Amino acid sequence: MSIPDIVRHPPFNITRASHVRYFVRDLDESLRFYTEVLGFVLSDLEDGIAYLRGIEESCHHSVVLMQDPARAGTAECIGMRVASEDDIAVAQAHVRGAGGTAEIVERPHQGLSLMTTFGKGTPPVELCASMPVLPRMLNNFVAQKGGRVLRLDHYQCAVPDVPSTVAKFMALGFRPSKYTLDEETRQVLSIFLSRKNNPHDLVLAGAMGPRLHHVAFVVSDLQAMLRAADIAANLGYGREVEHGPGRHGPPNGMFLYFRDPDGHRIEFILPPMQYIDPEDKPNVWESTDGVSLVPWGGGPPQRWREEMTRFDGHEAAGGPLARWTSLTDPRQDRTP
Amino acid sequence: MSIPDIVRHPPFNITRASHVRYFVRDLDESLRFYTEVLGFVLSDLEDGIAYLRGIEESCHHSVVLMQDPARAGTAECIGMRVASEDDIAVAQAHVRGAGGTAEIVERPHQGLSLMTTFGKGTPPVELCASMPVLPRMLNNFVAQKGGRVLRLDHYQCAVPDVPSTVAKFMALGFRPSKYTLDEETRQVLSIFLSRKNNPHDLVLAGAMGPRLHHVAFVVSDLQAMLRAADIAANLGYGREVEHGPGRHGPPNGMFLYFRDPDGHRIEFILPPMQYIDPEDKPNVWESTDGVSLVPWGGGPPQRWREEMTRFDGHEAAGGPLARWTSLTDPRQDRTP
Amino acid sequence: MSIPDIVRHPPFNITRASHVRYFVRDLDESLRFYTEVLGFVLSDLEDGIAYLRGIEESCHHSVVLMQDPARAGTAECIGMRVASEDDIAVAQAHVRGAGGTAEIVERPHQGLSLMTTFGKGTPPVELCASMPVLPRMLNNFVAQKGGRVLRLDHYQCAVPDVPSTVAKFMALGFRPSKYTLDEETRQVLSIFLSRKNNPHDLVLAGAMGPRLHHVAFVVSDLQAMLRAADIAANLGYGREVEHGPGRHGPPNGMFLYFRDPDGHRIEFILPPMQYIDPEDKPNVWESTDGVSLVPWGGGPPQRWREEMTRFDGHEAAGGPLARWTSLTDPRQDRTP
Amino acid sequence: MSIPDIVRHPPFNITRASHVRYFVRDLDESLRFYTEVLGFVLSDLEDGIAYLRGIEESCHHSVVLMQDPARAGTAECIGMRVASEDDIAVAQAHVRGAGGTAEIVERPHQGLSLMTTFGKGTPPVELCASMPVLPRMLNNFVAQKGGRVLRLDHYQCAVPDVPSTVAKFMALGFRPSKYTLDEETRQVLSIFLSRKNNPHDLVLAGAMGPRLHHVAFVVSDLQAMLRAADIAANLGYGREVEHGPGRHGPPNGMFLYFRDPDGHRIEFILPPMQYIDPEDKPNVWESTDGVSLVPWGGGPPQRWREEMTRFDGHEAAGGPLARWTSLTDPRQDRTP
Repeated sequence: MSIPDIVRHPPFNITRASHVRYFVRDLDESLRFYTEVLGFVLSDLEDGIAYLRGIEESCHHSVVLMQDPARAGTAECIGMRVASEDDIAVAQAHVRGAGGTAEIVERPHQGLSLMTTFGKGTPPVELCASMPVLPRMLNNFVAQKGGRVLRLDHYQCAVPDVPSTVAKFMALGFRPSKYTLDEETRQVLSIFLSRKNNPHDLVLAGAMGPRLHHVAFVVSDLQAMLRAADIAANLGYGREVEHGPGRHGPPNGMFLYFRDPDGHRIEFILPPMQYIDPEDKPNVWESTDGVSLVPWGGGPPQRWREEMTRFDGHEAAGGPLARWTSLTDPRQDRTP
Repeated sequence: MSIPDIVRHPPFNITRASHVRYFVRDLDESLRFYTEVLGFVLSDLEDGIAYLRGIEESCHHSVVLMQDPARAGTAECIGMRVASEDDIAVAQAHVRGAGGTAEIVERPHQGLSLMTTFGKGTPPVELCASMPVLPRMLNNFVAQKGGRVLRLDHYQCAVPDVPSTVAKFMALGFRPSKYTLDEETRQVLSIFLSRKNNPHDLVLAGAMGPRLHHVAFVVSDLQAMLRAADIAANLGYGREVEHGPGRHGPPNGMFLYFRDPDGHRIEFILPPMQYIDPEDKPNVWESTDGVSLVPWGGGPPQRWREEMTRFDGHEAAGGPLARWTSLTDPRQDRTP
Repeated sequence: MSIPDIVRHPPFNITRASHVRYFVRDLDESLRFYTEVLGFVLSDLEDGIAYLRGIEESCHHSVVLMQDPARAGTAECIGMRVASEDDIAVAQAHVRGAGGTAEIVERPHQGLSLMTTFGKGTPPVELCASMPVLPRMLNNFVAQKGGRVLRLDHYQCAVPDVPSTVAKFMALGFRPSKYTLDEETRQVLSIFLSRKNNPHDLVLAGAMGPRLHHVAFVVSDLQAMLRAADIAANLGYGREVEHGPGRHGPPNGMFLYFRDPDGHRIEFILPPMQYIDPEDKPNVWESTDGVSLVPWGGGPPQRWREEMTRFDGHEAAGGPLARWTSLTDPRQDRTP
Repeated sequence: MSIPDIVRHPPFNITRASHVRYFVRDLDESLRFYTEVLGFVLSDLEDGIAYLRGIEESCHHSVVLMQDPARAGTAECIGMRVASEDDIAVAQAHVRGAGGTAEIVERPHQGLSLMTTFGKGTPPVELCASMPVLPRMLNNFVAQKGGRVLRLDHYQCAVPDVPSTVAKFMALGFRPSKYTLDEETRQVLSIFLSRKNNPHDLVLAGAMGPRLHHVAFVVSDLQAMLRAADIAANLGYGREVEHGPGRHGPPNGMFLYFRDPDGHRIEFILPPMQYIDPEDKPNVWESTDGVSLVPWGGGPPQRWREEMTRFDGHEAAGGPLARWTSLTDPRQDRTP
């Protein structure tokens, strides 16, 4: 068996991907991009830190932008919500027991929060038990701008050792919805892992890491995607519309990738499919199946394949770059 | 307190609204409507019973059409999935202990299934532990028709006694995402109840009941909604496009209502918002707030307000019809 | 023959429907509606008169709003463009020769202009040879609001005597693209007349008149229509979204009708089909064919059928109201 | 003055771009692509020749596919409609007088037709006075497939000598809506020429020619574009979705380019803007302005820039290839 069994009763309850912490060079320019182009709502701005949420989100923030020229272009961590404060306590013990680090952190506009690492080569994850609730802006059409971004959906990270990283996250209850296998070694090359009821909270792929390839946000429709791209062009960011709009392979869905002013990559996706029933098996692909991220069109540009956000303080190392590339080969997709 | 506390650890685990069982007069005509107009995929057809699923669904069926002229126009039950077979056993004991009925039933193409009633005036609910898995048709664009319906989302039922029915379902872990209160009595008049991670698996509203007002299915975009309506017109069902396209009040979202050849009402909605975080409070509205199901446009036609599907063998009785009507008054919506 | 022959070489060259002159009660409120909800761009505002254009239009204005409480709710005229100043001179002689009136008028921001009437019971038409050219706002996505209205397309007027009015306009080169005939008298009951290369610059229907039923503007897509409706609701105009979104019968196309703060009716349509080739025959319908303006859905509300804008100084009289109603009967449409 | 004056009263009346004649290798495969993927309707199929029209078109055909392995991958001509048979006679005399060739040709399913060439290095143009009228399929939603292509809009041709070719077409009444100028020589490098009421029937750009870069067809909305791409992928043509969806520079509009099984390039565009008023000046761009065909995204792939359909019997020669390339440099667009 190439991937571990699903853990139906994990030690603590991670509910969903929730927030990312980015370092940026110029907060004014970043805010212009995130609010005017992508359509985020500013929840708070203080001490050189901006807290943003999508128009559907009632949680205080899903994006934190921290002005810090020395670390601009890197991320501090990706964030996950847990169901309660009790889960934070259990998580701290569990992660430490598994050889990772887990420290309670004070975060403005967050409830009890725990910064964790699961070992070298894995992305730092901040767990958070709650956030203040702010009004959803979904019905306030007058205030909506640009891409009218709805909510954070998932992260994609590059890690040098996919199988060991998968094991660590699946031990926390993450469930695979799709993965690719090396035809010869039967090792997992890339994987979609899920906690909430759709196919992805965290995508892992083998490459030099830990690095953050992108954070994906849901938008309502194609027209919202295009409005973001059109306004990006108006504001001088036309070349930062990096890839798309295009169709992903299964689980399919339209995508459009942007690079923010510091190079952080944001993916817009349409509302993903539901993934709940336990008997639903993941899609599995051999490395030679030619599964494609893009069933039509010419495939991503080289910079989409190579450039990623590093995590501050975490050296990126190792990684089977060739495999990453093969996953994204724009060959014909089969209908599942 | 007008509604009960949320039960975070319910006796058994209902995961989502899953399937409806309708009686129909002419199976051929119903199949034409469900496949050509709405876009369902036929999973199996045997013994005068058709099993249909949406193009996103891997479960065997979300709609069961049973040819039976004597009962045509009624429903047998609404269906809910539970997480495992163990949940079925616990459910049987729980429902019986609570004064309801719960009988194991043999259903083709379903795992362990339990038909339950929660007492007079409540809708019959069939619990199901699993279904065979069939290929998702999401990427098979050639085979997709009409509205390209994705998946079942929720039911709306009329019940004569909303508060007692709410108490019964909330005891099973259903969580309220929105409700209306009588300004004077502080009693709940209508409510959205959820198990999966969006605002609704079951909507209850006070009226003569138990009756099934509609079953809602998710479609991908406005263009899919309209294609269903356009094909309905081509095939002679133009007047069965009953209401919409229009916008619902909060939680908002576009809708379009159809009546099938037996009068069963199907709602098409766009992908609903996410509703996960425990600190997220339901929207609450006073009966005098003028909350509207339709922030713009002229409101639903009278038949939308009055006509519903009865449950075979369950007499519809009682119900504060005036309240139901007031909920749907097409007055101006406030932005939440 | 129930309608006249097409005049291929008319006395002067009307090129398209171009602008409407409305009287309004409160210019500030009207401007809010036209710019925030519908998405018009303000070209000039002076002396209590606002000049507006769609985001695609380079002509100075397609809507003129004149603050005048005494005449609010009426229109002064509908406007047509002619190809050159020479056409104005010929038009003046022609109209006078045909028994109408034709006076040169001074209009700010218009070239040579001629106010004409073609006799009792017909709408007053202002011909205009040119307008100053302003930048198209089509690529300026940042500045676009609400429905992002593109351009004026056509007028629909009620006239008491359709056959004689049709004769007058067809003598000017208008070409029919669709009409309905009284089954017994073979008289035309309603008609689409066109000068530019789509099916309609002027629609005439038999009813008390002359009255202006609506002015239609093209928008880019369904999402733009809905954004206008959603913002209308946010700004308190939700009940002024009068009818739709829905589908028209042939030549088909999606529509959405609004009432402005003075009750003037604005139709949004998607880009209409091309109608150029001379051998293309109009669609002709018998009054008993049950042709429908809406192949699906419940049909327009009563106020859509009855309420219209009067032309200031032109008494509305006569008219076979029953016929108008029958045209819009929401019966099933046949596929042409 | 770098381009000629507009000829308002041309010798004969070309009304619009109308039909293309392609040679193909395998008619069955071509038909599969044109009907299933793009959504054309088959009007007639006889003697190895297929006649296709868009779902909006009542003219008999806008695409003619001629099975001929020896000439597969080339085109015979592009076609233009004239207003009447009289125009054909005048055209023959005019073209011959201007040094071109003009021969009456017998074409099935076409009225009086004239094959013309305007001299070496220009594309062969077939003029046609009429076609049989067939039912528009616009309201027949059941029969619509793939991209639901509406109608032919324009051609883009590469010609080695743009100024002299422009002079020839403008003498026939074509009007420029946009052009680029060499900054130093003030010569026109590329141009949009129009007869019908939108910005383009014929686009010319300097390159080795005459060659046909693409034929553009209007589709209704983004969802139709994407459905064509998705079905292309299902049927094995995923890599023939060559470029887009993306946004063109001014006059803007969304595009998606396909290559058919013989390599002929088909562009899908959304309904273009109206271009009627005589005082409307063309957009003019210096070669150094960095005007872009794509205000956002990464620009077209190399094969889009270089590969084109040759005209059978017309040697492609000459041409300032560098200029063609510079026109399409994906640099930032300014808002006009």
